[in-house]
Amino acid sequence: MHGYSGDKQAYLKRLRRIEGQIRGLHRMVDEDAYCIDVLTQVSAATRALQAVALGLLEDHIAHCVAHAVSEGGPAADEKIKEASAAIARLVRS
Amino acid sequence: MHGYSGDKQAYLKRLRRIEGQIRGLHRMVDEDAYCIDVLTQVSAATRALQAVALGLLEDHIAHCVAHAVSEGGPAADEKIKEASAAIARLVRS
Amino acid sequence: MHGYSGDKQAYLKRLRRIEGQIRGLHRMVDEDAYCIDVLTQVSAATRALQAVALGLLEDHIAHCVAHAVSEGGPAADEKIKEASAAIARLVRS
Amino acid sequence: MHGYSGDKQAYLKRLRRIEGQIRGLHRMVDEDAYCIDVLTQVSAATRALQAVALGLLEDHIAHCVAHAVSEGGPAADEKIKEASAAIARLVRS
Repeated sequence: MHGYSGDKQAYLKRLRRIEGQIRGLHRMVDEDAYCIDVLTQVSAATRALQAVALGLLEDHIAHCVAHAVSEGGPAADEKIKEASAAIARLVRS
Repeated sequence: MHGYSGDKQAYLKRLRRIEGQIRGLHRMVDEDAYCIDVLTQVSAATRALQAVALGLLEDHIAHCVAHAVSEGGPAADEKIKEASAAIARLVRS
Repeated sequence: MHGYSGDKQAYLKRLRRIEGQIRGLHRMVDEDAYCIDVLTQVSAATRALQAVALGLLEDHIAHCVAHAVSEGGPAADEKIKEASAAIARLVRS
Repeated sequence: MHGYSGDKQAYLKRLRRIEGQIRGLHRMVDEDAYCIDVLTQVSAATRALQAVALGLLEDHIAHCVAHAVSEGGPAADEKIKEASAAIARLVRS
């Protein structure tokens, strides 16, 4: 069981939709769509991916991190360090 | 013809690879992968999408914007405003 | 007492340095520095600000959120929602 | 003369305001403000810095890049590469 397990079906649906957005981008480039229109769709797909990441992160903090923290000890510190590193990767990507 | 036309096949290949990354994310969530591992892959896909966007933008400036600028007039101003708006969307997404 | 209290002096020093970076940007513009050189310094200041934010966030999760979680109840949920909203603002800025 | 020369006074004013925001952050940390409130102000300052960068970039494309492009030759290619690298640094910061 993971933080996102309760919403698993919703995440799977969102990822399917993003896969469709990427396929749509492929089609746009293949059909020589105007650069700026392609870029607008790239921004939309990027935002959709980030929204998935933010959701996963909130679920992760609310479940895995919270669980480790309530048990205490070095495992809690490790979970917090690990989550912080994931946040940093997200902010910088 | 667009800015990216010369590299069209390379862009199509990169978008196919990103589509594969998203399908991989779907599989990870479906198989209950660890949240942080899913997040790491989301960051990788986001960076790959941004790299495509930066490439398209450079091609667009080097071709469409440069062409409009060398012709001059209000069309040049319009192209610059349009490219700037696309850059802003990219920076904020 | 807050999450960052233990490192307060270090944060104050980093913010002073960022203030100096912004003053440096002011001077560059005032002395008509080349646009790209100004932009490079803006990126450096932005990254320094984000590094401060990531540090504050980690301290916040490790102290305030962890404390609320170990006490449990609705206050814990609230702290997690609040931290997630701050992460989202950071990712989108 | 640079791309931003026409708006120089406005840029100087915006940078002064951002310097004030950073000083405000220093004061908040010094007075032990709540972490999330500090983070909200960091996000605001980051967005203000990015808005300055996007303005400088638009001015740069509309003047320096456009000028080089209308003259043509290898200097034009160089300016476009340089601007693209600045956009990439901005997107990744």
